[in-house]
Amino acid sequence: MSAAPASRRARPAKAPLSRQVIIETGLRILDRDGAVALTMRRVAQDLDTGAASLYVYVANRDDLMAAMLDHVLGTIPEPTGATWRDRLTALIESTVAAMSRHDGLALVALGAIPTGPNALDLVDRMLAQLAAAGLDERTSAWAVDLISLHIAAAAVEQSVHNTKIGTEEDYVTAVAQQFAQLPADRYPTLVTMRDALLAGTGDARAAWAVRVLVNGILATPTD
Amino acid sequence: MSAAPASRRARPAKAPLSRQVIIETGLRILDRDGAVALTMRRVAQDLDTGAASLYVYVANRDDLMAAMLDHVLGTIPEPTGATWRDRLTALIESTVAAMSRHDGLALVALGAIPTGPNALDLVDRMLAQLAAAGLDERTSAWAVDLISLHIAAAAVEQSVHNTKIGTEEDYVTAVAQQFAQLPADRYPTLVTMRDALLAGTGDARAAWAVRVLVNGILATPTD
Repeated sequence: MSAAPASRRARPAKAPLSRQVIIETGLRILDRDGAVALTMRRVAQDLDTGAASLYVYVANRDDLMAAMLDHVLGTIPEPTGATWRDRLTALIESTVAAMSRHDGLALVALGAIPTGPNALDLVDRMLAQLAAAGLDERTSAWAVDLISLHIAAAAVEQSVHNTKIGTEEDYVTAVAQQFAQLPADRYPTLVTMRDALLAGTGDARAAWAVRVLVNGILATPTD
Repeated sequence: MSAAPASRRARPAKAPLSRQVIIETGLRILDRDGAVALTMRRVAQDLDTGAASLYVYVANRDDLMAAMLDHVLGTIPEPTGATWRDRLTALIESTVAAMSRHDGLALVALGAIPTGPNALDLVDRMLAQLAAAGLDERTSAWAVDLISLHIAAAAVEQSVHNTKIGTEEDYVTAVAQQFAQLPADRYPTLVTMRDALLAGTGDARAAWAVRVLVNGILATPTD
């Protein structure tokens, strides 16, 4: 006696295809298997459809990555904090955290125009905090550029650490071993300062970097 | 009558293989055809040898890219300038320029440890300028981290512009068109400031960013 064929109804219904579903699938692949695994073919496979069907909703892999980035930027919470400085710092730190959580996503933001609606929301919110700081429009505008560049770079660095390098402790140990062997005649300042170079946690350095940017922006006229 | 076979002597002598020759060939491929074209196979082809012969000198493509980056960092001139600030600024600007001249090379520097001898020279020289500024060791150390991150990010951004986006003018025009269509109710600050967002050349903004970093570092204690 052969087994009765499974009813089509017993299979879970396929979710209807949409740009949103494709974006969420892309993020799931990124988080499970990394940026190299993210191909249009793989997204189509995971959605149990053909790659050609995807192109109705996304132009290509670059377009999909950009859409995934914008989706992630849409999860940044409205910053709280008593002062513009607290709010701006919170915005920067949550954006770095959100972008670095997904392999390869921060790279998309480096050198590209933020054209997505959520990226523009973020620019708008940062500009509002800089205006609240009393900065003129030109300084605020240039500041958003510089802060955006820093956010993307810090997120790339963070995500490389997350995926490749192992624990912060291992990393510091490896660098310390290399520094211990450097000749003082060739690298006089570096060798003198090598303890300082390794002091402080990544978090403390990252927070200091944001304070540097904000203090520097306040102290630097654009002309 | 058949043609006489060409004498082996008439062919140009093959350059003996070395890490240096491989690095220079890699840079030539990068500059002619971009980072995607740079494979070990292609380097071997250009050197008229087999890929297996390369592995005596370089471990893999990542190792080759890192070696190419270090080679390029070896071309940064000793900074001149009357003050530590002039010298530090010159170092930063020449490093961004050198790294952005080669597609994909700046990416290698993002999030990676600077282990090459020329990268360490650069760190040593930056530390010396920061010490000349009167900064304590810990601040100098953290500053070199932040400056290195900025250099790599600015170089990635610059090289994306060089290879993908066309002229700065075209780019500004495209962004201006997008900004002109944004709804003021959703992006109130951005829409108000859109002229300021587009004002100033890339060079002026880049120079301002370096001044911001230096001023911020001077103004920000590490604790």
